[in-house]
Amino acid sequence: MRTSIATVSLSGPLTEKLTAAARAGFDGVEIFENDLIGSPLTPEEIRERTADLGLTIDLYQPMRDIEAVPEGEFARNLRRAEHKFRLMRRLGADTVLVCSSVSPQAHDDDALAAEQLRRLADLAQEFDIRIAYEALAWGRHVSTYDHAWRIVEAADHPALGVCLDSFHILARGSDPAGIEDIPGDKIFFLQLADAPLMALDVLQWSRHYRCFPGQGDLDVAGLVGAAVRAGYEGPLSLEVFNDVFRQAEAGRTAVDAQRSLALLQESAGLTTPPAPVVPTGFAFVEIATADTARITPLLTALGFSRTARHSGKPVDLWEQGAARILLNTDTGSHRPDPSLTAIGLENPDPAAASSRAESLLAPVLPRRRAPLDAPLDAVAAPDGTEFFFCATGRPGHPSWTGDFTPAAHTPGGIGVTRIDHVALTQPWHQFDEAALFHRSVLGLQPHASIDLADPYGLLRSRAASNPEGTVRIALGVGASPTDDPARPQHVALVTDDLVTAVRRARAAGARLLPVPANYYDDLAARHEFAPGELETYRELGILYDRDEKGEFRHCYSATIGSLFFELVERMGGYDGYGAQNAPVRLAAQRT
Amino acid sequence: MRTSIATVSLSGPLTEKLTAAARAGFDGVEIFENDLIGSPLTPEEIRERTADLGLTIDLYQPMRDIEAVPEGEFARNLRRAEHKFRLMRRLGADTVLVCSSVSPQAHDDDALAAEQLRRLADLAQEFDIRIAYEALAWGRHVSTYDHAWRIVEAADHPALGVCLDSFHILARGSDPAGIEDIPGDKIFFLQLADAPLMALDVLQWSRHYRCFPGQGDLDVAGLVGAAVRAGYEGPLSLEVFNDVFRQAEAGRTAVDAQRSLALLQESAGLTTPPAPVVPTGFAFVEIATADTARITPLLTALGFSRTARHSGKPVDLWEQGAARILLNTDTGSHRPDPSLTAIGLENPDPAAASSRAESLLAPVLPRRRAPLDAPLDAVAAPDGTEFFFCATGRPGHPSWTGDFTPAAHTPGGIGVTRIDHVALTQPWHQFDEAALFHRSVLGLQPHASIDLADPYGLLRSRAASNPEGTVRIALGVGASPTDDPARPQHVALVTDDLVTAVRRARAAGARLLPVPANYYDDLAARHEFAPGELETYRELGILYDRDEKGEFRHCYSATIGSLFFELVERMGGYDGYGAQNAPVRLAAQRT
Repeated sequence: MRTSIATVSLSGPLTEKLTAAARAGFDGVEIFENDLIGSPLTPEEIRERTADLGLTIDLYQPMRDIEAVPEGEFARNLRRAEHKFRLMRRLGADTVLVCSSVSPQAHDDDALAAEQLRRLADLAQEFDIRIAYEALAWGRHVSTYDHAWRIVEAADHPALGVCLDSFHILARGSDPAGIEDIPGDKIFFLQLADAPLMALDVLQWSRHYRCFPGQGDLDVAGLVGAAVRAGYEGPLSLEVFNDVFRQAEAGRTAVDAQRSLALLQESAGLTTPPAPVVPTGFAFVEIATADTARITPLLTALGFSRTARHSGKPVDLWEQGAARILLNTDTGSHRPDPSLTAIGLENPDPAAASSRAESLLAPVLPRRRAPLDAPLDAVAAPDGTEFFFCATGRPGHPSWTGDFTPAAHTPGGIGVTRIDHVALTQPWHQFDEAALFHRSVLGLQPHASIDLADPYGLLRSRAASNPEGTVRIALGVGASPTDDPARPQHVALVTDDLVTAVRRARAAGARLLPVPANYYDDLAARHEFAPGELETYRELGILYDRDEKGEFRHCYSATIGSLFFELVERMGGYDGYGAQNAPVRLAAQRT
Repeated sequence: MRTSIATVSLSGPLTEKLTAAARAGFDGVEIFENDLIGSPLTPEEIRERTADLGLTIDLYQPMRDIEAVPEGEFARNLRRAEHKFRLMRRLGADTVLVCSSVSPQAHDDDALAAEQLRRLADLAQEFDIRIAYEALAWGRHVSTYDHAWRIVEAADHPALGVCLDSFHILARGSDPAGIEDIPGDKIFFLQLADAPLMALDVLQWSRHYRCFPGQGDLDVAGLVGAAVRAGYEGPLSLEVFNDVFRQAEAGRTAVDAQRSLALLQESAGLTTPPAPVVPTGFAFVEIATADTARITPLLTALGFSRTARHSGKPVDLWEQGAARILLNTDTGSHRPDPSLTAIGLENPDPAAASSRAESLLAPVLPRRRAPLDAPLDAVAAPDGTEFFFCATGRPGHPSWTGDFTPAAHTPGGIGVTRIDHVALTQPWHQFDEAALFHRSVLGLQPHASIDLADPYGLLRSRAASNPEGTVRIALGVGASPTDDPARPQHVALVTDDLVTAVRRARAAGARLLPVPANYYDDLAARHEFAPGELETYRELGILYDRDEKGEFRHCYSATIGSLFFELVERMGGYDGYGAQNAPVRLAAQRT
């Protein structure tokens, strides 16, 4: 289906919004009236610019407080509408959105509403314009789509139809199945937005917290399916009011929006892009640093050995069990602090995963930037982290390990078996985009969003994983935008015996994060432990959590720059990340 | 009454919170458990640090999900409580907050709740500790203060009383009058927070949007009055969870908090600080700039004349009607861009106004920093703007104009009669603090907060004025914190004939903000005008607004650095600021 986006969904002046929408591949736009009013371009110039960019103007919006009012008031409304219809002709827009009235003067009188909308449609028809009537969720008398449809049906005018907005319909809990009872050619327009479920006044919810389909909790795909079954053939158009998108760069918001629509059409069964290929494990993480003086002693103390060196690049492979870390000193910059720049994911079908990523507008990495020579498929996530689709050691696939020459080393280790999860702090404006990327492009399932208390603000965190829990990525975001480019990252390593692993790491000189004694006094109050157990945790700086499924032990290394490591032991079916302990960890990292 | 603040209301590690509270003059603190757990200090060290700072520990909090549970569960809860009581003895805290249970295991059984709380109080008494039982607004079975009191009354134990929290009581719309029926010695603790009225889930509202009394919409003073009439003699303690305060610097948040309590005690009739003295008009605004090359042509074109020069400092007085602008080139810095640094307010009793400001912890300006020599009283607002209390030309008061020597000038002007308002963008973390300052220290009445759409985010704006509308200050704040130190400021000037004034200013070469033609097409749709009226607005770049009380015409100068001027004409009883036109103005200023 054709795709469209409301200019209000993007930041900046109108011309920047149009350019961003065109570059991201949208077919059309909805022109939000305030964007036009604030623009120095005439309607004719906007029409020309839009056409030059290959965009159609699918909707002009909104027209408010028109119907079911006293006759004198309605005469003034018709006069106002005529001005707007003339403007729309100059603009080349042929459909206008009319929202159900919120005016205190409006009567609760469907017959009057239908009669006045019919007269409005008569006037519109003279200008070859169509009226798409939408029930606002907070409309004074008309607040549900079926009610709006009954009025449109009664008005019975060829230039009058309904506009369906997924937010207004789903936020009120209306059943979208009734959409199928509306003739498709009377559904003049379909506006799409998602939103996280919130117990908030619906007007505020709508104006500040809408997001692109797939980023929230509403079943937008189900609604689209109903509209298509009803026979709707117009564009799928995104209308999203969001406080963060308003500040974000329009170009990347538009790409995020297109990706959302691609996933939505797939979910609604309208398209069949390359299917997602769920990763099965971590192949490696790559850490780049110009200066290895601080990172290699820590890796060594954590039990890693340098097992191989890349044949042609200054990249070392460090291994322990199935945990692999690439240390890349070819950073192309002067940053001495190590940072996590790439993640290799084991994938059953790397080529298919790459095709899917491409179909979802994920930036495919140019080969020359890749730290590896094997023809691996790789894409860049919104935060710049590179994801490689790997088939380590599997016959018939190029193995990235082939680029490496084994180095002499003494096998050892502290008992780390593999990577448990990677935690990546996201740029503030890209948190929802990142969650959608990890879900749609990488095929991971996102979990609920939680707040973690840092001494200087609340952090939001959301994990995504594969069903087996062998690939886990935790996305975090700070309390507010910051210009500090150093965003905390960490790599968590699995061990089956954390106490032994920590003892060995400490003996090898690993610097671990000190945990305040008060934490253990609190643990003693909250749980009962086997004799000596709590004392061991206290001695070694081990954190502990328990839920109905199992237990979790973990500890953290000291931080180098903004990178640190975690050692974890999962017991029973514990599936979390020790969120209960996050405030203590964050406070300790601040001191 | 004694004042106290919960450590959770301030940002940073525990030691910084304690220091900030002590410096702002608090008598005590509530220790929030997570702050203690995250601290590397032992309870004994915290006790010592607190005592060294002159603070008492008035409350340890919170203890959750204790009461009305199955016996096995309660036994575990008693064990947990005993750990905490031992900790409190080490800490030197003798009152603990117990919140009403939110546990799904809790029974709706007041008799069981009373019996278990009595047993908890028995245990507490062994440690010389008192239990303050609080009804959480979202408690599972106990969510109102009168319900909590009935349980405490039934338990009838000397170590058990209630904790009253203004948020939990007022957010649910409970009538605080019933507090007077509780014996004062059974009100063990009083926690205070305000909040803006929001249609939001009460738990989210409580955790993110509480603010200090006087910054929101709740009648906290009325509640305090009821508690005092009941005989409560404990501290007034602030417990505020706020996403912004969490990030702000603890020292200034603590001062803001103390100012809030001072105003609260005055409002509740508990103290009689120097009464507010409401200003009656603007005496002057001061603009500092190292380079006058851009500002003086603009002032001249706007009809101002340089009428006098300071006898001993590089400060010029520019006048037109009763509008006075001081141009100060002694900036002590290299900033060439002009910025508004001081505002003189006409005050009936400058000395009394200054005493009030001092009693409310407003930083009184050291004389040497003042740009004027006359012994004027002045204070610094949270954003650094200096406010002078003036009695221009009134006998018996020092007149700041006496410092100036008249300069030869040609009287003229474009018809400006006085200053209408000053608009100051606030640092992001200090918006609520600024609103409280303008209300409490300057004696202005705050109006409702509104959102204005800028192309790159929503701006929040809140005006404060005196009753006559002759002093108006509009406080604004951006969508998110920014490191850009240039915050937009503007000065609005009154004229009785804007059209003539604009013609004259343009003829004199004033650069005014261009307004898009589309704006006038929209005006034509929205309103009917006298013949030629709209064309005049279009020709001159005049913006227009109308409400039920009157009409408003205004226009803006070009911006120099981040400073600009506005010319306004108020007709009839129009009392606003043309918010309807703000998106157009903001978009035009972005281009």
